[in-house]
Amino acid sequence: MIRNLRFVVRYDGTAFQGWQAQPGFRTVQETFEKAVAAVTQDARPRANPSGRTDAGVHALGQVVNLYSRTKLPPETLVRAVNAHLPEDVCVRGCDDVPEAFDANKDAVGKTYRYVIHDARTPDPFLRHYSYHCRRPLDVSVMQAAAEALLGRHDFRSFETNYPNRLSSVRTITSATVTRHAEAVWVEVAADGFLYNMVRAIAGTLMKVGRGDWPAARVADIVAAQDRRQAGPNAPPEGLFLVRVEYPPPTPPPPGGPT
Amino acid sequence: MIRNLRFVVRYDGTAFQGWQAQPGFRTVQETFEKAVAAVTQDARPRANPSGRTDAGVHALGQVVNLYSRTKLPPETLVRAVNAHLPEDVCVRGCDDVPEAFDANKDAVGKTYRYVIHDARTPDPFLRHYSYHCRRPLDVSVMQAAAEALLGRHDFRSFETNYPNRLSSVRTITSATVTRHAEAVWVEVAADGFLYNMVRAIAGTLMKVGRGDWPAARVADIVAAQDRRQAGPNAPPEGLFLVRVEYPPPTPPPPGGPT
Repeated sequence: MIRNLRFVVRYDGTAFQGWQAQPGFRTVQETFEKAVAAVTQDARPRANPSGRTDAGVHALGQVVNLYSRTKLPPETLVRAVNAHLPEDVCVRGCDDVPEAFDANKDAVGKTYRYVIHDARTPDPFLRHYSYHCRRPLDVSVMQAAAEALLGRHDFRSFETNYPNRLSSVRTITSATVTRHAEAVWVEVAADGFLYNMVRAIAGTLMKVGRGDWPAARVADIVAAQDRRQAGPNAPPEGLFLVRVEYPPPTPPPPGGPT
Repeated sequence: MIRNLRFVVRYDGTAFQGWQAQPGFRTVQETFEKAVAAVTQDARPRANPSGRTDAGVHALGQVVNLYSRTKLPPETLVRAVNAHLPEDVCVRGCDDVPEAFDANKDAVGKTYRYVIHDARTPDPFLRHYSYHCRRPLDVSVMQAAAEALLGRHDFRSFETNYPNRLSSVRTITSATVTRHAEAVWVEVAADGFLYNMVRAIAGTLMKVGRGDWPAARVADIVAAQDRRQAGPNAPPEGLFLVRVEYPPPTPPPPGGPT
């Protein structure tokens, strides 16, 4: 019997050339599929992610599904697959989902976090997990600016390589900017994201937080529908895919971050 | 004119063979002294740390002093030395201190943190910065046990290679066990620490937190003055030197963690 298995996968993207398998590169997809194959004896498991992540981007709760003939229960699969994975990627949970479940097409919401370290001196512990901005950021001004992103808009101003989608309209349900000691978190939840959208948002909000741009400019950038109006894409090492949501009756995946 | 310079140094200990210079190994001391020499042109700066840290141990606020003929102001030294340091070590602050100041001998207090990750599945982001204990820990029982460590005691039960000091008597001024999501922090402040003392305390409190030992046993272990009574030394990657304190009139070093 073929099962459709859903996994929650966490990875430190530093040493991976992104999610998608590419000959000659170390990728999360190939690393994960190899570990699954070693456990399930499936000839060639094909992991379908909620979305690909770029080189250097991290995931706290990436969700993937794959079809397998294994008879092992989910908890055993978690332990066994982890035993075959290198230290920079792990499986946090696993469950059986309906045959038609598709981790990419069925996702109804995603949350990303972009981490900016804004102390004057660098921090060895944040070097792979944040962008280092040497000028202090004004978090409350960034938060005010972020509110212009809320709701349903055409976000092509924050999209790399427009037009590359049927539609650049997305709904941002939450956009918060919070300080955690010397780190500033830009956290954005939406029904879906355009290519490099969070990195463009982070680059834009940094301009505001440094005082280069007024907060009100963000609404103008959204309205302009022009990528050149927004700030630069912030680099990949500050970006984390936090979680992916699916509609009922599919329950939230086990082992996802809270 | 010779100046006595105090630096606060932060390092990710993962890729260092500890603080102390050893031919053929990458150490924090050699890395730091080389960066200082490149900036100050001193022939052979000799950094005197508050204490050495072992291979794999991290520091948020190590304090060192060194004598230099440089004329550069402290803020310039911070920037310039950082420009010569690799990414896994940085200078957080620098100030001029009296000629007699000795970062090791003058330290009157130190705080260490030991981080234990107690979720069932591993976490790629904590792999170099915690010990992974697959059994959940009871933090309140650990906290109760830690209170037996408070005060002035002969701590040879928590000392590797006793007798290797004039005295194994130390005063622990604070010992707290707190949960931070899936990580448990054992934080201990004292007027000084014996070799491997925090790692032995962490190994002992883990026994209690897992339910292997009753909390009351910690007082017995202290009283026994016998290293064999305590738990094993927890591994180095979970250990952080958080801060070092000096008495007035020497002010707290700039750039230390708060």
